[in-house]
Amino acid sequence: MFNKKFEQFEVNETWKSRGRTITESDLVMFSAFSGDWYPLHADKEYAEKCTPFKQRIAHGMLVLSVGTGLLQMEPEVVVAFYGIEKLRFINPTFINDTVHLELEVIDLKDKGNGTGVITFNQKIVKQTGETVVTAILKMLANKEAN
Amino acid sequence: MFNKKFEQFEVNETWKSRGRTITESDLVMFSAFSGDWYPLHADKEYAEKCTPFKQRIAHGMLVLSVGTGLLQMEPEVVVAFYGIEKLRFINPTFINDTVHLELEVIDLKDKGNGTGVITFNQKIVKQTGETVVTAILKMLANKEAN
Repeated sequence: MFNKKFEQFEVNETWKSRGRTITESDLVMFSAFSGDWYPLHADKEYAEKCTPFKQRIAHGMLVLSVGTGLLQMEPEVVVAFYGIEKLRFINPTFINDTVHLELEVIDLKDKGNGTGVITFNQKIVKQTGETVVTAILKMLANKEAN
Repeated sequence: MFNKKFEQFEVNETWKSRGRTITESDLVMFSAFSGDWYPLHADKEYAEKCTPFKQRIAHGMLVLSVGTGLLQMEPEVVVAFYGIEKLRFINPTFINDTVHLELEVIDLKDKGNGTGVITFNQKIVKQTGETVVTAILKMLANKEAN
């Protein structure tokens, strides 16, 4: 989506990413990387016996991080990813779930210095149709002239 | 910090984590894991020649994810990490920077069902004293009785 300049964006426009399956390897890699070995993510026995989900679930940050890899971002366009409002983890992502992004532009603000802020709703959705993560993201993008 | 029950928390209490050095390996692992190979994080030549930082910077989500590994969380306590408000990436984290967490409890809400919501300001701070990430996090925690 971020392969065009600020002027080419429109409020209400939408974009959908390709999908990615969240594997057991992803859970292990993310625990190893982050240091977050919380049993709900890393202990199969505990997750099956002691949690309402009856299985391991992916870390919220894992799903959100995978989301950044599904965004198309070109360096000529994106100046900075500068923040998130109201991030919610609303449903669990299980091993072998396949997630994709659904974006909708909700605000465009010209900064008057060759850049503008694109605000969009991001939903991360899985194959069942359930939304697992919702967030409002803000991206600083270049204008044509810049 | 999350190794005690809801009743034991107090508004204004603070907690500081140990540190972790963000290495070049971390940047590579995070790109490989997330699929985010944006040149600012992954292309040394580009980062040195074409960006105001003159070097690669860590992905915002990398720093935030490392932050989750620095939280102490016990499964008897934490029911769910359910969201973030107002996440801002305010300064860059470079390779070899060492970050730690600084938490302050700002709100406690008893849910009346054996759990309560702990809201806290989280800052991720580096060795220079600069804050790199700010966020308001919400954690659902068990009460003693639960």
